[in-house]
Amino acid sequence: MFELLQTDPETKARRGRLHLAHGTVETPIFMPVGTRGTVKSVSPAELHALEAQIILGNTYHLFLRPGTEILREFGGLHPFMQWDRPILTDSGGYQVFSLAKLRELKREGVHFRSHIDGAALFLSPESVLETQAVIGSDIAMLLDECPPYPCERSYAENSLELTVHWAERSRKWIESHRKEGQHYFAIVQGSTYAGLRERCAKELVDLDFDGYAVGGLSVGETDSELFEAVETAEPHLPATKARYAMGLGQPPQLLELIARGIDMFDCVLPTRVARNGTAYTADGTLNLKNQKFEKDTRPLSEDTHPLCQGFSRGYIRHLIKNDEILGLRLLTLHNLHFYLNLMAQARYAIETGTFAPFKAGFIRRYQG
Amino acid sequence: MFELLQTDPETKARRGRLHLAHGTVETPIFMPVGTRGTVKSVSPAELHALEAQIILGNTYHLFLRPGTEILREFGGLHPFMQWDRPILTDSGGYQVFSLAKLRELKREGVHFRSHIDGAALFLSPESVLETQAVIGSDIAMLLDECPPYPCERSYAENSLELTVHWAERSRKWIESHRKEGQHYFAIVQGSTYAGLRERCAKELVDLDFDGYAVGGLSVGETDSELFEAVETAEPHLPATKARYAMGLGQPPQLLELIARGIDMFDCVLPTRVARNGTAYTADGTLNLKNQKFEKDTRPLSEDTHPLCQGFSRGYIRHLIKNDEILGLRLLTLHNLHFYLNLMAQARYAIETGTFAPFKAGFIRRYQG
Repeated sequence: MFELLQTDPETKARRGRLHLAHGTVETPIFMPVGTRGTVKSVSPAELHALEAQIILGNTYHLFLRPGTEILREFGGLHPFMQWDRPILTDSGGYQVFSLAKLRELKREGVHFRSHIDGAALFLSPESVLETQAVIGSDIAMLLDECPPYPCERSYAENSLELTVHWAERSRKWIESHRKEGQHYFAIVQGSTYAGLRERCAKELVDLDFDGYAVGGLSVGETDSELFEAVETAEPHLPATKARYAMGLGQPPQLLELIARGIDMFDCVLPTRVARNGTAYTADGTLNLKNQKFEKDTRPLSEDTHPLCQGFSRGYIRHLIKNDEILGLRLLTLHNLHFYLNLMAQARYAIETGTFAPFKAGFIRRYQG
Repeated sequence: MFELLQTDPETKARRGRLHLAHGTVETPIFMPVGTRGTVKSVSPAELHALEAQIILGNTYHLFLRPGTEILREFGGLHPFMQWDRPILTDSGGYQVFSLAKLRELKREGVHFRSHIDGAALFLSPESVLETQAVIGSDIAMLLDECPPYPCERSYAENSLELTVHWAERSRKWIESHRKEGQHYFAIVQGSTYAGLRERCAKELVDLDFDGYAVGGLSVGETDSELFEAVETAEPHLPATKARYAMGLGQPPQLLELIARGIDMFDCVLPTRVARNGTAYTADGTLNLKNQKFEKDTRPLSEDTHPLCQGFSRGYIRHLIKNDEILGLRLLTLHNLHFYLNLMAQARYAIETGTFAPFKAGFIRRYQG
């Protein structure tokens, strides 16, 4: 499913292509987050206009609402939400650890209570794959345990062993139940311990999945710990399979991780910070709540998306100050375009052998 | 500015055309409400797609935020909000009576405090026209006093006299300050008293404005009181000028008022009820929060707007239940289309001499 097209001579950056049931995805790629069957405030037609190639859905949220019974009735998430391009779903594990109540972690799976209505629920490596089969995502993620940060080595080691045990059971489930057109990615854990990251990567690769994620990132660690976690796992991941860094990050972090061999990203930041009135630009972020923008007739940036062109910073500030949804919509579209366009620029830079100077130049201007 | 094209032989329904600075408006027409420089959740491009011909802006809200200084800087509301078709603005009087605090009504104008920050402010017949000149609306409304319901005859009479006094001062202001391309509508008051409605209409018509509104409606009165208020004012309004019923109503009410000679409407209902999960259809309203829709794969209605086609009732219910903005957006677009399309059907019915049976058939099915 993954085609490696080109490798950067100076860094580990890769130009690739994912061949999926609902279409082809050019990598490196950013996946807008559509937690509950919608990328917040954005329509599928607008995602097309933004040239989004693949989006992420959250299995935990979809499992609670609308639930598998309704998703099955609609024939899966694609027809339910009217999105015809690829979808990757997480396993729900991360949300069970961050959102659910009264969580009880056992070798067979996780018992927990819904954060919505307190209902007693259970996730296992097999059940999350069954749920994702009903969702019908192009890429399904395995159940893993995401340890907290900071985390004792002994905790991280036990957690890793559970993640690998669950991966073995997932492997068995896939052999007998693989949903046609669905691919399966395992998640490398190991916290900040290089030896554990390495061991986890090796053990998962031995089980042979369609792709590999590096998980447990962006949970409070420093940038150097984040980069090291990827650097220690990456050499043990096969070059012929896609690598996905889960749940991050700021634009410079994405370029640093592309330079370390990562192909795929998802992050709530571009949609979440829009709700606070923040716009990404090549020169850093703008906070539209700042009074200095009230008479600013310029667009958010020169290279904003056509859907946002014409709208001034002053008008968007007015909308945001008055909690008008159009302000949130315009900032969300602008920010998603910024992230998607950053990936398009990175792909072009890799193709033209200019990724290292592109990355350096982008970060210098962004942080300047 | 108003061209009367055709009058229905059986009712008082009129087919007309408003020639305004930012374009031509076919009447009868519904004006989506854009209180604070945006029709809630809808982009100007979507208003174009809905074939909205004219929208309403609220002078009171725009006066408070962003304020005339910023609007002047942007060259008025049209460039500020990127809407290139006609805008009608109310005078702000109604909001002063319904929203503002510590209101003190005097012959010179209204002293009040902002509902946002308590700032002491003052509106006069002249100042609201000055504000609307800065806004640059195609149609500006005169300041009036909207009496409460129910209301003693003596109160309604004093209120009427103040409204006419303010109209006289407005007339003088317009003679010396008329903004090029702007038209001015006066507002007939008189509460539920036929004699007062008649007197107010006559006195305002003597002052000769570009159009006339019937105000003080939809404040708690019965349908028959509403219809009677329009029926008593209408014969005294010149056939050659547009008539506008302010701030209403339900779809059957709009058809009843068209039958009584009204050309223009504005109402928050289609956008407001969307926030409660309600969709208008030819068979009455649907409340999407109802569980019976959770597996309903049908669209909101067969004749929903193309922007909403493909999205099922079950999916929209899921979005609304989860407070997802896309659900609000889709219901708002659907409802605005319903109102705008109802006016298009009414215009066609008048043109083809079938308005009376169209009205009867619509109301029978809608209320059935």
